[in-house]
Amino acid sequence: MSRLINRQWRVARRPVGLAKQSDFEWREELVPAPGPGQMLVRNEYLSVDPISRAWMWQDDTALPALPLGSVMRGITVGRVAQSRNSAFVEGSRVLGLLGWQDYALSNGESDVLMRLSPDEHDVPPTMQLGLLGHVGITAYFGLLEIGQPKAGEMLVVSSAAGAVGSLVGQIGKLCGCRVVGIAGSTDKCRWLREELGYDAAINYKAEPVFKRLKQHCPHGIDVYFDNVGGAMLEDALNLLNPHARIVACGMLSVYNDVGGLLTLPPGPNNLLHLTLRRARMQGFVGFDFWPRAAEALTRLVRWHRDGKLRYRVDVIEGLRQAPHVLNRLFDGTSWGKLVIRIS
Amino acid sequence: MSRLINRQWRVARRPVGLAKQSDFEWREELVPAPGPGQMLVRNEYLSVDPISRAWMWQDDTALPALPLGSVMRGITVGRVAQSRNSAFVEGSRVLGLLGWQDYALSNGESDVLMRLSPDEHDVPPTMQLGLLGHVGITAYFGLLEIGQPKAGEMLVVSSAAGAVGSLVGQIGKLCGCRVVGIAGSTDKCRWLREELGYDAAINYKAEPVFKRLKQHCPHGIDVYFDNVGGAMLEDALNLLNPHARIVACGMLSVYNDVGGLLTLPPGPNNLLHLTLRRARMQGFVGFDFWPRAAEALTRLVRWHRDGKLRYRVDVIEGLRQAPHVLNRLFDGTSWGKLVIRIS
Repeated sequence: MSRLINRQWRVARRPVGLAKQSDFEWREELVPAPGPGQMLVRNEYLSVDPISRAWMWQDDTALPALPLGSVMRGITVGRVAQSRNSAFVEGSRVLGLLGWQDYALSNGESDVLMRLSPDEHDVPPTMQLGLLGHVGITAYFGLLEIGQPKAGEMLVVSSAAGAVGSLVGQIGKLCGCRVVGIAGSTDKCRWLREELGYDAAINYKAEPVFKRLKQHCPHGIDVYFDNVGGAMLEDALNLLNPHARIVACGMLSVYNDVGGLLTLPPGPNNLLHLTLRRARMQGFVGFDFWPRAAEALTRLVRWHRDGKLRYRVDVIEGLRQAPHVLNRLFDGTSWGKLVIRIS
Repeated sequence: MSRLINRQWRVARRPVGLAKQSDFEWREELVPAPGPGQMLVRNEYLSVDPISRAWMWQDDTALPALPLGSVMRGITVGRVAQSRNSAFVEGSRVLGLLGWQDYALSNGESDVLMRLSPDEHDVPPTMQLGLLGHVGITAYFGLLEIGQPKAGEMLVVSSAAGAVGSLVGQIGKLCGCRVVGIAGSTDKCRWLREELGYDAAINYKAEPVFKRLKQHCPHGIDVYFDNVGGAMLEDALNLLNPHARIVACGMLSVYNDVGGLLTLPPGPNNLLHLTLRRARMQGFVGFDFWPRAAEALTRLVRWHRDGKLRYRVDVIEGLRQAPHVLNRLFDGTSWGKLVIRIS
């Protein structure tokens, strides 16, 4: 095993704007051998998420900032190749924060988010990343726990054709909400309406968002699931109903703007609506809900098997592509979950 | 009664910036006679509140926008002068939205917030407005219900020497919090520390707020009671602890900026902290808590009688002064509750 090569992307610089390939360093090292209590995981699929870009900041996000020179942080599904940890047998699969690399050493604790049970060996890794892992847990708990939608309410989702957004709208429909999505192309909007059951979709690149929101939400917005921040958040704030909830899941619009948290562009000018409408804007981090993952996964699996919940995964071949693939999350060309097949 | 004169301030224009006297119209009319089910209230004291300025906007706030020509909205304590409503005896007192005028007709429902019981006839009207009316209810429920402070937590209050803020900090101390206030003069800061028991106070006109907040809150902020918005909100967001709560009580910093809600200045650039810190920013309107007023008033009275809760009322003589007095809320010269003695 130790003569095998471990290819890695490491963080070389703090990017300004979209990350460039030169902000990363390609390294090829010998695969390390696991010490006592450790295991060696062979990464198979790498999830690329919008927050990945913010993980390159010099500031902490929900996780500590990565020192320059670190292997780039990323969630993967991998198979245990060698184990000196009695809790993990060789050949079993895990989902964890195991990085942009072929192989990772793990203690099986801090960096492993899910141990995939033998049943789940039947589940393709792409489904694990697109529906039954962090994405599904984020969508499920973000909408149901933070957003608390009720039947008959109006739900608006930004980045609605993204991995989380595309699930959120469908779960909203299962809760009896009317659902409007905001996405970046006519094709995506058609997908939301025709395949995912969204009541309406707005192409923010071609349509006036505020005007369309007013048309599609004539009685106002009760839950705004925000993946974007920026001008769309401002538009949604202007249409909040009394006691509305804004689910602050993320802010795609700011991750690339600068090198960190202290120099971001100005925010919405109308936060006063939170007061006037007795509304709530609440942030959350999907990781916090891992202890309750089983509750979400049981329902996600059932909805999917019953044909009520679809997911889509875009698979790109090759770890080499990772820096380019990251930018596809921000140029509007990505649909559903974006995943890299490593091996 | 009908030969008496009812002096009024009516809204003549939508102000731009600080309201000018010429944005109001002074009217003297005959006092109207109550119809069936109505009563005539003689206003004694008028509360001037920061939100009063926003009530002049063309946009709705938590209450509908006032049409031009309306009597200016304001909360008063008054005495029933004539009653054709069996629920209100002549000579009893009420607190209500009875306007910038000597006399108001009322149906005893929509515009009456509190019927002051005979016991409360012993309570001076200024105490009713400064502690036992809308101000006390806003401070009490805003902090306890929306902010949910726990013993040992760090509470920061903006506009801390204002009517609501000065109560919030003291209630925070009664909950076992460490409390830092932000106010606009050395004297106010001394008052907060020496009279009201704040642990620290920052004079935002003379000190760098963010730097001082970092010094006084070395372990971060758990509850930020926001009366101001703007740059102070941005500073507080940068120091939020995990699961922090921002109580969005109001935004003094924006009420005068423009003529309405759609052209306010940009907001905080760092709302992403709500996500990263799993924090919540929640608005509320004191009026919503009137059905539960008794719960708050019982405790506020007890705290006050036990010497644990102080309030301060600035009384200005004469309804004529009202437009000037309104601006004192924004120039930093007002302490505690600002009240006009009408009669």
